[in-house]
Amino acid sequence: MRILVMNPNATRSMTDKIVASARTVASPGTEIVAATGTPPAPPSIQGHHDEAMSVPGLIARLRQAEAEGLDGVVVACFDDPGIGACREVFSGPVLGICEAAVKAASMLSTSFSVVTTLPRSVPVIEHLVHGYGLSHRLRRVRSAAIPVLALEEEGSGAREKVRAEILRAVEEDRCEAVVLGCAGMADLTEWLTEETGVPVIDGVTVATRMVEALVACGLKTSKVGAYAPPIA
Amino acid sequence: MRILVMNPNATRSMTDKIVASARTVASPGTEIVAATGTPPAPPSIQGHHDEAMSVPGLIARLRQAEAEGLDGVVVACFDDPGIGACREVFSGPVLGICEAAVKAASMLSTSFSVVTTLPRSVPVIEHLVHGYGLSHRLRRVRSAAIPVLALEEEGSGAREKVRAEILRAVEEDRCEAVVLGCAGMADLTEWLTEETGVPVIDGVTVATRMVEALVACGLKTSKVGAYAPPIA
Amino acid sequence: MRILVMNPNATRSMTDKIVASARTVASPGTEIVAATGTPPAPPSIQGHHDEAMSVPGLIARLRQAEAEGLDGVVVACFDDPGIGACREVFSGPVLGICEAAVKAASMLSTSFSVVTTLPRSVPVIEHLVHGYGLSHRLRRVRSAAIPVLALEEEGSGAREKVRAEILRAVEEDRCEAVVLGCAGMADLTEWLTEETGVPVIDGVTVATRMVEALVACGLKTSKVGAYAPPIA
Amino acid sequence: MRILVMNPNATRSMTDKIVASARTVASPGTEIVAATGTPPAPPSIQGHHDEAMSVPGLIARLRQAEAEGLDGVVVACFDDPGIGACREVFSGPVLGICEAAVKAASMLSTSFSVVTTLPRSVPVIEHLVHGYGLSHRLRRVRSAAIPVLALEEEGSGAREKVRAEILRAVEEDRCEAVVLGCAGMADLTEWLTEETGVPVIDGVTVATRMVEALVACGLKTSKVGAYAPPIA
Amino acid sequence: MRILVMNPNATRSMTDKIVASARTVASPGTEIVAATGTPPAPPSIQGHHDEAMSVPGLIARLRQAEAEGLDGVVVACFDDPGIGACREVFSGPVLGICEAAVKAASMLSTSFSVVTTLPRSVPVIEHLVHGYGLSHRLRRVRSAAIPVLALEEEGSGAREKVRAEILRAVEEDRCEAVVLGCAGMADLTEWLTEETGVPVIDGVTVATRMVEALVACGLKTSKVGAYAPPIA
Amino acid sequence: MRILVMNPNATRSMTDKIVASARTVASPGTEIVAATGTPPAPPSIQGHHDEAMSVPGLIARLRQAEAEGLDGVVVACFDDPGIGACREVFSGPVLGICEAAVKAASMLSTSFSVVTTLPRSVPVIEHLVHGYGLSHRLRRVRSAAIPVLALEEEGSGAREKVRAEILRAVEEDRCEAVVLGCAGMADLTEWLTEETGVPVIDGVTVATRMVEALVACGLKTSKVGAYAPPIA
Repeated sequence: MRILVMNPNATRSMTDKIVASARTVASPGTEIVAATGTPPAPPSIQGHHDEAMSVPGLIARLRQAEAEGLDGVVVACFDDPGIGACREVFSGPVLGICEAAVKAASMLSTSFSVVTTLPRSVPVIEHLVHGYGLSHRLRRVRSAAIPVLALEEEGSGAREKVRAEILRAVEEDRCEAVVLGCAGMADLTEWLTEETGVPVIDGVTVATRMVEALVACGLKTSKVGAYAPPIA
Repeated sequence: MRILVMNPNATRSMTDKIVASARTVASPGTEIVAATGTPPAPPSIQGHHDEAMSVPGLIARLRQAEAEGLDGVVVACFDDPGIGACREVFSGPVLGICEAAVKAASMLSTSFSVVTTLPRSVPVIEHLVHGYGLSHRLRRVRSAAIPVLALEEEGSGAREKVRAEILRAVEEDRCEAVVLGCAGMADLTEWLTEETGVPVIDGVTVATRMVEALVACGLKTSKVGAYAPPIA
Repeated sequence: MRILVMNPNATRSMTDKIVASARTVASPGTEIVAATGTPPAPPSIQGHHDEAMSVPGLIARLRQAEAEGLDGVVVACFDDPGIGACREVFSGPVLGICEAAVKAASMLSTSFSVVTTLPRSVPVIEHLVHGYGLSHRLRRVRSAAIPVLALEEEGSGAREKVRAEILRAVEEDRCEAVVLGCAGMADLTEWLTEETGVPVIDGVTVATRMVEALVACGLKTSKVGAYAPPIA
Repeated sequence: MRILVMNPNATRSMTDKIVASARTVASPGTEIVAATGTPPAPPSIQGHHDEAMSVPGLIARLRQAEAEGLDGVVVACFDDPGIGACREVFSGPVLGICEAAVKAASMLSTSFSVVTTLPRSVPVIEHLVHGYGLSHRLRRVRSAAIPVLALEEEGSGAREKVRAEILRAVEEDRCEAVVLGCAGMADLTEWLTEETGVPVIDGVTVATRMVEALVACGLKTSKVGAYAPPIA
Repeated sequence: MRILVMNPNATRSMTDKIVASARTVASPGTEIVAATGTPPAPPSIQGHHDEAMSVPGLIARLRQAEAEGLDGVVVACFDDPGIGACREVFSGPVLGICEAAVKAASMLSTSFSVVTTLPRSVPVIEHLVHGYGLSHRLRRVRSAAIPVLALEEEGSGAREKVRAEILRAVEEDRCEAVVLGCAGMADLTEWLTEETGVPVIDGVTVATRMVEALVACGLKTSKVGAYAPPIA
Repeated sequence: MRILVMNPNATRSMTDKIVASARTVASPGTEIVAATGTPPAPPSIQGHHDEAMSVPGLIARLRQAEAEGLDGVVVACFDDPGIGACREVFSGPVLGICEAAVKAASMLSTSFSVVTTLPRSVPVIEHLVHGYGLSHRLRRVRSAAIPVLALEEEGSGAREKVRAEILRAVEEDRCEAVVLGCAGMADLTEWLTEETGVPVIDGVTVATRMVEALVACGLKTSKVGAYAPPIA
């Protein structure tokens, strides 16, 4: 089985980290194919504009993946950009990491908070969770007030800020689990789980194995309605 | 006051029709500035892929509108593509025609149905209405089973199909109003209202006047949260 | 176009202020017709009882407006009293200022709070917003702990209390816009917007222009269901 | 214990029927005090206008009931008119028959339909049920297409139409219980239950006993928020 | 009329207290039949496991009640354990004390909080209230941080903790009423109402009288759908 | 990795079929441990009573699995019986097949219907889907009008009835995917997918791989709230 894990932004170091995380959880027989966005996709996706600029490149890469016969796709950005379009151009399962993570959180707890990077992502994520039907399980979307790319820099203090925000979430929101609201946090999961005592859920790993699950069960995206191939 | 009415697809004849509708309702002092998408924007927007391909051009045009000091924007496609991104790059009010139309419908009736073009647009619109919080007022989204561009062709029978579907909506859904689910139907509103006996609501005209309303009241898009300008 | 702006309470000075606000935003060709409630309508509407006492007079005035051929109606009380009944007796669009304001807020931001006068109005407004389907956008309804009529008195400190409460809303609720929850605050909008840095939305002006918008688009209240004329 | 059962419309024969129903279920120690609306309350309440015209008289009667020290109130019209205002002017529990009936239905079944009189009442009732939080239990609100006062006339065929509509509800809606959507149907409950095989729930009797229940438990309307006494 | 009031846990002293409360509110002609769970039902029900262990005994007792011709049942544990199963094996109305209490609260106020025993019960109750459709009325479920059985012990300080938590609820949640979230608090209602100034609602008494109400109105559990008798 | 797949009813032949399905999708390194309920668990679970009778045995088996150090659990009954209790007594992920299947369906389509066995299961499933937050994606829960055990009998015609009901769902509900609403249908998935042209989703296989996914990602059930171990 071959699964495309695509980082839709244009920062290659982030892709490396994401794909490394995906590979730690993939089953032996699963090949993880890496992909990174190219400009006009921005170096990080922080808001609707950035998201929109990343989607055409994402679609192009998925068309290629379809031609290559890949089995499934993970879109590794927590804003779940372009998922509907991706599902139109690809036959196998396509999963965003926000959808995967919050659905996993709801299987392991009765309530969760999300910790993301900048405040501007908060309403975007709230809207996604509303669409996924899990608003009643979501305690709060919190920002650790760090730019996405600070997670790539040694010594930025970003990790510690994420940890501190998770601890605040557990204390103040009375949540039972915490979802990491950025693909760039994928490598912190184990450390954060140990530090905080609650399940800390990273969308990259969960989405990788969930796509694997759907493929293994012989499931594909429905083509009889909203996700039918583009007409033109 | 200058309002940009942008048809995000690449079909100029549709823009002409849309802009003509907008001008029939605009106040005397309001200038309607027309814009059409350019490829890779497709000739019509039928699904998520098409929508995604139209957004970068839409954003580019809005950045220009911002530089020119325009006062407001109507995005004249019923899928409300790229609204979040548009609100990030423009200071004044930005309104999609779906949002405008369903909010107007809920001011004139207690329930409404939407009549759109192809079946694949049905779930897209359902999802939009859910996000706008009006699912409890929506009776049903219906498709008249016509491609968008058939509305541009004389003798395609498209108009009659729309009328027939509206009559079915009134009969079967017990709805009190009908929203036209495609910018390309803007010129049919008056005829359809006369033929059907219920308020028939076109998003192009309503959105134009609602944007005008917001501008006249001195209101602009909030820049303190989700719609802050792009970082890069 | 002639639009009735009716203050359903019996305080004439409030009507004057409301109508002055409406006139500042109305289009050149629009005539604003003023009306004030008469007893048993109370001097201010603070709660369900007061609302109920104001409705028969409101209906009577709308019947007259219908006979006079007026084109639209704004009910200028934030509790949106008697809107259903008004829509039954009047052909053109009828809009309450709460409905207008919260729908405008949701076009300019992803979240908003409401600042009203007394605590007792808080649940009334929460219930209205729930009915309008915007609970998921509403952060909180707040009271500035001032009686409605204090807004009419020089030196009451009411304006400053409203400003302080808006600043608390921005800080504590992390809202992106603020809706003024009383018709008597209509004259404060500009000042409050400057002082607070977020869109401050007044229902009187917005409702006036939105009714204008609906009339200009040729739209009327649906008469095939809930808003059919009274039987007797 | 003394409970006021008030028919807010002006038809005395309907009051007699309602009160007779209430008395059949009241506990031995409970005195049912009857009241009927007086003009401008209309002879039947069919829509928002009629409702609004009945409320001032309803409030006046409840003020008197408060002065007389009555213990609870049933508002015997299925539109639940003026409940908020009633709760402001009365200390003991006040219950509308729609609220009582749909809450009872949700204790006896997992889904129910409502059968009311005229189509115009359908959206009014849908809105009420939405506010009571039971939309997910409501299958459909149906109209038997009979005017309220036809229920008062021998030989009008109204009873048979109600029965037929209930049978359609059970068949088509797959509901488990049926709520009678008009106070004027109170005397039909037993007959309809026998004829249809599902619980048929009348709001008058249920509301009477539920108000009794609340009074017996020493409960009164909360006065610290929305239902505080009117200010003036 | 004979009503079974069953305490599904195995603590007889709690049953005595519960039944005493039920008897203080029952109508003269109503006989309250007491029942207590037996092991494997645990001494108190604190979580899903405990709930599950209590249900088979509860069902067995209800089968016996059905054979004895009892008229209605109150399940006196705030987790509303096994209500669906109980409704399958019993003909008359069956009501859990959470359902009864929150529905009563919504008849007396526009918002309420629940005060329960241990934190682990909080999400259980939130889920129940969501199912009953009253999430929009619920301010917060709070824990007084006391084990259920501490309510049975003199000098445990449990009562004072409950009072303090109610006062915090009124202050911090701005709720208008408080529901006691444990059957073991039934004897505290009067004292707490006096101490706090808001309606304090105990499910045992309310459920007892509401079951009485349903029986008095001739209503039984629907047997045409979800609550049909078990097949085997 | 060792995953317990437990059929909570007492029919061994159904367990065999379920476990065979689970094994077809499990990863090479995953051992599927089979378990069947024992009386008083009924031979099939059709309704709340049956569900309640199966839960104590389910809990007992999970306690044993915990002691044996198993990694995850699938509860293979579409009513998702006892999931909360199971999560309290087991450390690893526990997933019911309804939750797994409807979440998978929402990853592959924008709308789905469920086809179950008997009508009495319909409201049970509707309630589950409501709790999982996917009501807005659910078109309809349909019954094929077959007893669970008919699926075990050659020549019962049950398979054909399921196929026919799926085709009706696609036609009448305009759904994009269909979920099989009974563990006993697990072996029909491939055949039904071929026959119907839409994704047909079986909860047994999907839940098995999703539990595997959660275990592979190092995730366990949260123990800080609702799913803390039982106190006694």
